[in-house]
Amino acid sequence: MSKAIKKIGVLTSGGDSPGMNAAIRSVVRTCAYHNIECVGIYRGYQGMIEGDFKEMGPRSVKNIVHLGGTILKSARSKDFMTAEGRKIAHEHLKNAGIDALVVIGGDGTFTGAEIFNNEFNYPVMGIPGTIDNDIFGTSHTLGYDTALNTVVECIDKIRDTANSHNRLFFVEVMGRDAGHIALNAGIGAGAEEILIPEEDLGLDRLLESLEKSKASGKLSSIVVVSEGDKIGKNVFELKEYVEENLPEYDVRVSVLGHMQRGGSPSCFDRVLASRLGVKAVESLLEGKSNYMVGLLQDKVALTPLEQAIKGSSKIDEELLRVSDIMTT
Amino acid sequence: MSKAIKKIGVLTSGGDSPGMNAAIRSVVRTCAYHNIECVGIYRGYQGMIEGDFKEMGPRSVKNIVHLGGTILKSARSKDFMTAEGRKIAHEHLKNAGIDALVVIGGDGTFTGAEIFNNEFNYPVMGIPGTIDNDIFGTSHTLGYDTALNTVVECIDKIRDTANSHNRLFFVEVMGRDAGHIALNAGIGAGAEEILIPEEDLGLDRLLESLEKSKASGKLSSIVVVSEGDKIGKNVFELKEYVEENLPEYDVRVSVLGHMQRGGSPSCFDRVLASRLGVKAVESLLEGKSNYMVGLLQDKVALTPLEQAIKGSSKIDEELLRVSDIMTT
Amino acid sequence: MSKAIKKIGVLTSGGDSPGMNAAIRSVVRTCAYHNIECVGIYRGYQGMIEGDFKEMGPRSVKNIVHLGGTILKSARSKDFMTAEGRKIAHEHLKNAGIDALVVIGGDGTFTGAEIFNNEFNYPVMGIPGTIDNDIFGTSHTLGYDTALNTVVECIDKIRDTANSHNRLFFVEVMGRDAGHIALNAGIGAGAEEILIPEEDLGLDRLLESLEKSKASGKLSSIVVVSEGDKIGKNVFELKEYVEENLPEYDVRVSVLGHMQRGGSPSCFDRVLASRLGVKAVESLLEGKSNYMVGLLQDKVALTPLEQAIKGSSKIDEELLRVSDIMTT
Amino acid sequence: MSKAIKKIGVLTSGGDSPGMNAAIRSVVRTCAYHNIECVGIYRGYQGMIEGDFKEMGPRSVKNIVHLGGTILKSARSKDFMTAEGRKIAHEHLKNAGIDALVVIGGDGTFTGAEIFNNEFNYPVMGIPGTIDNDIFGTSHTLGYDTALNTVVECIDKIRDTANSHNRLFFVEVMGRDAGHIALNAGIGAGAEEILIPEEDLGLDRLLESLEKSKASGKLSSIVVVSEGDKIGKNVFELKEYVEENLPEYDVRVSVLGHMQRGGSPSCFDRVLASRLGVKAVESLLEGKSNYMVGLLQDKVALTPLEQAIKGSSKIDEELLRVSDIMTT
Repeated sequence: MSKAIKKIGVLTSGGDSPGMNAAIRSVVRTCAYHNIECVGIYRGYQGMIEGDFKEMGPRSVKNIVHLGGTILKSARSKDFMTAEGRKIAHEHLKNAGIDALVVIGGDGTFTGAEIFNNEFNYPVMGIPGTIDNDIFGTSHTLGYDTALNTVVECIDKIRDTANSHNRLFFVEVMGRDAGHIALNAGIGAGAEEILIPEEDLGLDRLLESLEKSKASGKLSSIVVVSEGDKIGKNVFELKEYVEENLPEYDVRVSVLGHMQRGGSPSCFDRVLASRLGVKAVESLLEGKSNYMVGLLQDKVALTPLEQAIKGSSKIDEELLRVSDIMTT
Repeated sequence: MSKAIKKIGVLTSGGDSPGMNAAIRSVVRTCAYHNIECVGIYRGYQGMIEGDFKEMGPRSVKNIVHLGGTILKSARSKDFMTAEGRKIAHEHLKNAGIDALVVIGGDGTFTGAEIFNNEFNYPVMGIPGTIDNDIFGTSHTLGYDTALNTVVECIDKIRDTANSHNRLFFVEVMGRDAGHIALNAGIGAGAEEILIPEEDLGLDRLLESLEKSKASGKLSSIVVVSEGDKIGKNVFELKEYVEENLPEYDVRVSVLGHMQRGGSPSCFDRVLASRLGVKAVESLLEGKSNYMVGLLQDKVALTPLEQAIKGSSKIDEELLRVSDIMTT
Repeated sequence: MSKAIKKIGVLTSGGDSPGMNAAIRSVVRTCAYHNIECVGIYRGYQGMIEGDFKEMGPRSVKNIVHLGGTILKSARSKDFMTAEGRKIAHEHLKNAGIDALVVIGGDGTFTGAEIFNNEFNYPVMGIPGTIDNDIFGTSHTLGYDTALNTVVECIDKIRDTANSHNRLFFVEVMGRDAGHIALNAGIGAGAEEILIPEEDLGLDRLLESLEKSKASGKLSSIVVVSEGDKIGKNVFELKEYVEENLPEYDVRVSVLGHMQRGGSPSCFDRVLASRLGVKAVESLLEGKSNYMVGLLQDKVALTPLEQAIKGSSKIDEELLRVSDIMTT
Repeated sequence: MSKAIKKIGVLTSGGDSPGMNAAIRSVVRTCAYHNIECVGIYRGYQGMIEGDFKEMGPRSVKNIVHLGGTILKSARSKDFMTAEGRKIAHEHLKNAGIDALVVIGGDGTFTGAEIFNNEFNYPVMGIPGTIDNDIFGTSHTLGYDTALNTVVECIDKIRDTANSHNRLFFVEVMGRDAGHIALNAGIGAGAEEILIPEEDLGLDRLLESLEKSKASGKLSSIVVVSEGDKIGKNVFELKEYVEENLPEYDVRVSVLGHMQRGGSPSCFDRVLASRLGVKAVESLLEGKSNYMVGLLQDKVALTPLEQAIKGSSKIDEELLRVSDIMTT
């Protein structure tokens, strides 16, 4: 970084997640703390291309720490996937005097940032914001903890009715490529079985487990299913399959859907967002670039964007085992 | 009623709803207050047929006022639809010395109770427990208020992500025959449009409304759809229809499902349950039978079961108008 | 009303309550629906005196239906208690072309509105917004239902720890002059005893009740106490008194305080606010003035402001009885 | 450990915390998984002395993972502080064939366990359950995460009314010796200032901060105060002090109290409880004793009980700095 940073831009991109507003607030206030300017960029990279900017002082982020969603809006930008789009975006940043970027989002967001950095030697710093927790280089992404609480609260409600009627519920939760939500929320909600993308349990094992459960007198059950589970059937097909093979089960399906992305962030996500925002801005001011700030072993830590993109966030083997034991 | 009532049976039947436990507690404690015995009957009419009974003293219902579901379990009983099944049930009641019944449930539950009363001149009293609020003779059924809060909390979360992405969501809520949940939760959640069984809005009007909304700069929208809406398309078909006709809209679907039936009851439902339980038991003790206890104009009131079954709970025209005005 | 109303002002005054924002939104949108203008007045009557006004179109109230507090802020204005203050306020309204007022608040707010109406023959309409439910002419004030849910959720948490330790808790809830919150939330939370301003239970009865409770094996208890209870001791004094007289009880105190006033409104309060806002504006447009819009027997109804101020909202005797029976 | 463990006892002791039930469930099911017996001991060490035991199979802990409090009850036992008391307890364990203990609680609980282990060479394993997070050897105690969410939800509600009235609130949270709750919830809730036991901010700094805040146009504020803060004034005295020195502030106080200890555990606490329960039982089965199982750098880890008791859980300096920056 040859030149001192005097103005930082911040944007949210990709799927929104609870805690993004707390992160925006942290970036804005950390800029103010260091007497540099901050500019909010609307609708992610698309707003960068369209020059949709807004100066943000510390009061502009008052009373947003607890809000779900993102006040800067989010979008997926096809234009930013073109060299031309990025060139226009870069010019907008230059014209606005913005010296560096903090981007809040997931894999796709970081990929865009890294390309942008490579093309223009432009300082960028990433903050992982996605409920899926599928980012390498951080134990927790923003919104993940909140989503887990949303899911267990929903399943707690479903269990009320499952128990009253002795029913089996297949509950589909988010996580196309990663089973973190399903595994943790499944343990948290006391699920009978958990189906995730990382593990092919197999339909036989599922039936076996349900038969065992029934034999032991447990007549109502919750099976948590990750969107991207490897069993090769979606929740509606699973329902049919079980009804055919275990007709004594009264089966229902619930797809939790997009509500998992919303809601007021948990305290954990608000504090994490505050910490990551400080680190992102201060790392840029120290001349660092092209990193993601994350949480590793309870400490804020930097991971090169390239690694964050290429690496994958593994399921904890210990948790798989805990999950098995809990359904004894 | 020739004979004094010394023991009352209580059961829950049909779909469960929040507040059923508070009603059971109220029935049990009102019996204790009047120094008569109370017996819990498990799994609705099926448990009556199977003699699945349990004596319940005032301490047996400690710490259940706030629990969703029903500790007595619920079921739909095919056997009770037969004269033979009901005869067996009646004998079980006689043998157990149970002199009268309080049944908590919906239309189907009341129909069973009325037939039973007619066949055996057996004292019965109904308490309306269903989230759909589709019972004539009460402004509120047990669980309805709780379900409304569950739905608006879910839609509040969905709106976070809808706003962040400028998306249109079709949110399906419960209510096969009645639009009370959709209409009230739709107003409460600030929905752009509400589709209910009682009103055929028509697809044209929906498109028109969405076009107007878009023209006015409102780029994200929530449309609340009752299960039994009259528009002739389910939420997934609605999504396709809108995407074809208004391709600028980014449409998503969320089916809230069974979680609407669970959860800790609202204060309103707990108080209502307590009031209805007292009235049900005391009405039986006064020699009344074959009524439903409900809430009419804020007062606890009796409606003959026959009317409760045949009548229908109308949508409030004023609310339809309020809903229109709110989307101005 | 000789002159047609073309512009309506809306303000919130006195203690805030959940649902005020939903009422503001309803007033603004009903104005838009009828093609008249709407002006928000900040900080209640104080903002009227200071001319702190803001034009409000239908989009200005987007996404506020679910927010606690009031976006127009609230205040108690000493200046408005003077004839001079009110004269200045009236001139500001005239200069701004505001033809009529909707005021959202409690007793004090309505008193101010009535005087203002009398002095200047100025059209006013009141909407009852206070958590205490202490207004004559409406079965429910805005925010009351939400506050009840907040209170029972808090007591549910307190009961967890009360039960784990066999402790007695005195929980103080809001309600200086009215015991509605204490009585309903007490029933809803399964309280052992409820102390309210309307009823002097007496310390002897309290001790007796606790002794009976203990004898029956109920070792943990919740006593809900209204701020303005008539027993002559606050919760801390009650704790001391019980510890002296029943030393076997391990007593704790919890004063729920101002959190009862905040939080996202319940569905009931949002719908009620929407209905009352429509009725307030349309009543003004019909030439009516000096009324409060409220809910009576489930219908929106008008009560002369004078009666709303002078009348009192009575405690339901049936509920007192239900409360007794529930603690059997 | 000369002898194979065939039966494990589990108890909860000291202040209860959300997640204790999930931990009990995990201990019981892990025992079942390894085909050993499990015995629940009621009311902590007191129940050990009184032989208040109950056999617990895997079904006995069904549907408790989401419940606050502890189904085994908790207590502080004076008798267990005597050698005689512990001797009786040891005999009860022997007679019941209980070979080892899992104790769930805080410092006091662990001290008792360590003494017991020393006196009788009896295998013990501790699980940290307390909302205060003041235990050395674990980054998170059971219930801490839940308490943080409870606190921020309460402050979110208080902020609604604080903002509506431009008021300053002192909010007292739990934490007699440790400021973890105050610091994290304060950051999470966007508090203006945070007073904790570990740091003597001084009254001058508080006034200065409030003056600065006021000058910057921020008219409503939340100050979070830990029970054991070092400033030498409780929240009521702080209110008086600020009112005297900054009379333009309208100050209110809220003491959150015991509700912080209750409530359904967060997903984090449920999963943590499940993990720690597995580790506690399996460590005993491996012949280990006198350790606490905790979470260190995201991994389940053992710390000798002696260290857990003597060590102290430090406030994170980085968080103090983040807190400062957030109030810019």
